[in-house]
Amino acid sequence: MRKGSCVERPVRIVMVGLGNLGRRFAELLIAKGDFVRCRFGLDLRLVGAADSHGAACDPDGLDPRIVVRIKSERGSIGAYPTAGRMGLGAVDLVRSVDADLLCEASPVNLGAGGEPGLSCARIALERGMHVVTPNKGPIVLAYRELVGLAKEKGVSLRFDGTVAGGLPALYLGMRDLRGAEISRIEAVPNLVTGFILDRLAAGASWEAALSEARAEGQLESDPTWDLDGWDAAAKLVILANAVLHVPARLEDVDRKGIAGVSPDDVRREARQGRAIRLVALAERFPNGTYSLSVTPRPLSSDHPLGRLGSRGMGIVYSTDIYGTIAATIEETTPLPSAATILRDLLDIYVPGEPSGSLPPAASP
Amino acid sequence: MRKGSCVERPVRIVMVGLGNLGRRFAELLIAKGDFVRCRFGLDLRLVGAADSHGAACDPDGLDPRIVVRIKSERGSIGAYPTAGRMGLGAVDLVRSVDADLLCEASPVNLGAGGEPGLSCARIALERGMHVVTPNKGPIVLAYRELVGLAKEKGVSLRFDGTVAGGLPALYLGMRDLRGAEISRIEAVPNLVTGFILDRLAAGASWEAALSEARAEGQLESDPTWDLDGWDAAAKLVILANAVLHVPARLEDVDRKGIAGVSPDDVRREARQGRAIRLVALAERFPNGTYSLSVTPRPLSSDHPLGRLGSRGMGIVYSTDIYGTIAATIEETTPLPSAATILRDLLDIYVPGEPSGSLPPAASP
Repeated sequence: MRKGSCVERPVRIVMVGLGNLGRRFAELLIAKGDFVRCRFGLDLRLVGAADSHGAACDPDGLDPRIVVRIKSERGSIGAYPTAGRMGLGAVDLVRSVDADLLCEASPVNLGAGGEPGLSCARIALERGMHVVTPNKGPIVLAYRELVGLAKEKGVSLRFDGTVAGGLPALYLGMRDLRGAEISRIEAVPNLVTGFILDRLAAGASWEAALSEARAEGQLESDPTWDLDGWDAAAKLVILANAVLHVPARLEDVDRKGIAGVSPDDVRREARQGRAIRLVALAERFPNGTYSLSVTPRPLSSDHPLGRLGSRGMGIVYSTDIYGTIAATIEETTPLPSAATILRDLLDIYVPGEPSGSLPPAASP
Repeated sequence: MRKGSCVERPVRIVMVGLGNLGRRFAELLIAKGDFVRCRFGLDLRLVGAADSHGAACDPDGLDPRIVVRIKSERGSIGAYPTAGRMGLGAVDLVRSVDADLLCEASPVNLGAGGEPGLSCARIALERGMHVVTPNKGPIVLAYRELVGLAKEKGVSLRFDGTVAGGLPALYLGMRDLRGAEISRIEAVPNLVTGFILDRLAAGASWEAALSEARAEGQLESDPTWDLDGWDAAAKLVILANAVLHVPARLEDVDRKGIAGVSPDDVRREARQGRAIRLVALAERFPNGTYSLSVTPRPLSSDHPLGRLGSRGMGIVYSTDIYGTIAATIEETTPLPSAATILRDLLDIYVPGEPSGSLPPAASP
């Protein structure tokens, strides 16, 4: 597709966080730039980027190829030629850069009050930027504040990547099912616990399963976030706020991780055709409130989430007018999670007709 | 929720077709009217309605309770008190009524050129109305024309209910995956063929399975539409046009129905853990074109669509950047299909923030 044939609207993006997701989004800008330009008329331009050691900023756009090269060599974006400044912080970048949209992909950091993500999101919204974030921290800690701020400023906040990786679990609930009353949400929103449980089922010891998960880059240096169910609980809190409209907090989730699961139990269930998964569950009481829990549960093979593979996540919505709807994803890399940033961005900039403009006809 | 506390924007709806879906949508207007008013600020008003024997029209709104009563007594809407006119046709109603949105839910009628649905949709768009339709006929026959017309007139055309009942299969592909290249779509989009195949698997004869399906109201008087795969092929054509952007027609689908499937085959597959389903398949060739087929296939229990129940439908998208995403629905009545009309309507009138306005806080 030739650039010349397309009308282009620039979208100036400032990116905070260049780890697994941020760096992969920079790769997507390279791979999908022409497609997005021609199909949707958007010129995605990275005008600023920050990691934990520095930042870079160029109103004409940083070259995503250089960003990717620096990060794949484990350098800091502060070392970006000419435009980089070591030591410049993310918050200062967001406060000063001229951009249309903040992509906030820094680590969750709930213990540190969701920082620097929360401050970056606040400042960006205050300054009239849209915010797209796959970072659970700010959404878990300040959902209503941030949604209210976005509304006040007339900009958009999107966070599809916070739940179940590349699966549009939130859009499904927030948009496609918003005419329904949802009596129950059952989700397997965490990847690495499923991977580990399947290793246990296959005969591995806890130690072997953990080191395999770590070798695959699936497990953080502190594994308790995933293993103790904090990650799943954070995702359930986001589902509760965004889909069920209840102001839930992490403390409201009755949480039990997989650390206490014995390999023998996993294998016994497996022999009977059931897979144990860390299940996040919201159940509606007759009075309209919800119970929220995260706990390992055996799922039969007939359960819509009972045959997820080691790379699978999923969600089931039980509704009054749309029956029972399940959605699952199989993802072998973090690319789908990073690609939610593109999904969110398109949702902001190309609303209206879901298909965008009608592309030229091609043969079947 | 009290009416007085909500700002209301009227949406004047004209409804064509008061069968399974149209009548159920009228029921939804009764059940969900207050909810839609308070959550989304929309006052859904039925200002006109037509069935095959007559029509009714009232700028102040027909009472959906009376519409439902008339139809449940198998009468014509032409008999609606004062506002009804026997013999008034749908096309004439759409041509004359003052409305904001046409809901076109008449029968598919591909043999009759998709009429009266196609004419009603054309006229409504020409007159500047939005169009929402779960009717495959007009979309299969005139997708590009209708999409182009809607764009020219600055109105919206939505048709989520045309594929896989209440499952948002189209929104998933058209919106959530629109940043992706889709290499393959595999769908089980037809309900009654799955029901019949499961009856055969359970030991029923073809005759018994058919009469059971008919007794449940699942099978039309002419069963060839479903059994010979026309329905699945029509849905695949819509997926191809709307999601894959290829101008496919029914003739482009390599189509084989379930009529030739022997009960012995179904049972043999079932004994080996496989369920036969009528599968609609689009596969991308390296040159970017797609092969389109509808054919009965055995699906293993590990396949994302391999454990659909007798009331299940589903779709699997294989993509470049979102991994493999599957979505399934279990629906025991046509209500979810009718409720797609509400989904489409909300998509038109409440775009932007997927959750709508932030409702008041309730406890978890």
